Amino acid sequence: MSGARASEKRALALVAAGTEEMELVITVDVLRRCGIEVTVALVSETKVGQTEADLMAQCSRGVNLKADTTLHTFLTEKAATDIGLPDVVILPGGLEGSRLMAKASITKELLQRCDAAGKLIAAICAAPTVLVAHGKMFVGRRVTSYPAFKDQLKDAGYVWEEPTANSPAGRVVRDGNLLTSMGPATSFDFALNIGSILVGAEKAESVASGMLYKWPI
Amino acid sequence: MSGARASEKRALALVAAGTEEMELVITVDVLRRCGIEVTVALVSETKVGQTEADLMAQCSRGVNLKADTTLHTFLTEKAATDIGLPDVVILPGGLEGSRLMAKASITKELLQRCDAAGKLIAAICAAPTVLVAHGKMFVGRRVTSYPAFKDQLKDAGYVWEEPTANSPAGRVVRDGNLLTSMGPATSFDFALNIGSILVGAEKAESVASGMLYKWPI
Repeated sequence: MSGARASEKRALALVAAGTEEMELVITVDVLRRCGIEVTVALVSETKVGQTEADLMAQCSRGVNLKADTTLHTFLTEKAATDIGLPDVVILPGGLEGSRLMAKASITKELLQRCDAAGKLIAAICAAPTVLVAHGKMFVGRRVTSYPAFKDQLKDAGYVWEEPTANSPAGRVVRDGNLLTSMGPATSFDFALNIGSILVGAEKAESVASGMLYKWPI
Repeated sequence: MSGARASEKRALALVAAGTEEMELVITVDVLRRCGIEVTVALVSETKVGQTEADLMAQCSRGVNLKADTTLHTFLTEKAATDIGLPDVVILPGGLEGSRLMAKASITKELLQRCDAAGKLIAAICAAPTVLVAHGKMFVGRRVTSYPAFKDQLKDAGYVWEEPTANSPAGRVVRDGNLLTSMGPATSFDFALNIGSILVGAEKAESVASGMLYKWPI
């Protein structure tokens, strides 16, 4: 996280066994390039320790990532009071990773506290289904997701949209403090929109250019 | 690497401290989606063991990845004879990661043996400079890279090209068994071209579609 503290904006990216590694890593990398402090926090079914092995997550295509902390530790130590809450919570996709985040009540605690404090919630691919699992959070809002989850989200009362590939912001849908996106190939758009919201479009455009990514589209 | 052995094609992706994590993870993930068996091998300045901690690499934006093995172990155990060589060697970018790969003589050993056996060598972003460091391997060939390395490659005798964004294959340059690409945002093109060469365009197109990526462009 070298040099990432200048903006004083903070992101919390969740990871679990089965998280889609591209969606996580692209988002974390792009936000750190934007000068945002990013913490990667592990969600698991049981409370775990903080040893090297305890923080490992095997992602959906076998990439092994080490989280910076556990969500449990983050919430009890860093964010014991609301002043420690991050400016954005990022939920990457991956079917199994999203299922774990949907099953874990600690995810609900995080999302509810962050929403109550007006923080940005950002979910991509399968991850918008995590909101459905935790009491239909944000029901009625405009969302997108991986197309396979369109019916599940519509049936639960969300207004599902397919963003056009040539909208300036890219393939994301924003409705208030909820930002959603579609899948691996839309991860750059997803991350750059989060960056733009937190530190401004000028910085996000500069980061896009440095990655050879055309954004705004 | 579940279900990834069907094609019997094998890829070796190198990682070092300071590797660009997006370029590595996108390529590994996409190739595993293509059904290719991918091994992530750590290159370091010193010979290291195979414990959990020994296999960790902190990438360019602070993402901590665990390699599957070390390059030393791979070459002495899996590829002691040429029958164990991978079908493709992948060199991801990241300035510091590429510098480490350029300094390590074991990288040269791998590249020379794979080239002599006609295997594909694939380098992206800063990584084409690794070829320059190891005796100007492939000098005279057509290459691309992150634009900042254009002059270094031209001065060393390579024919540097900037692939057009709307060529069907995407932003890559192929010259025989050498495939090069430009940076983070061209990683999908890079990986899909490797996949197409190893397991066919039809499979690569199907994988692109599943990731919501338009390829061929």
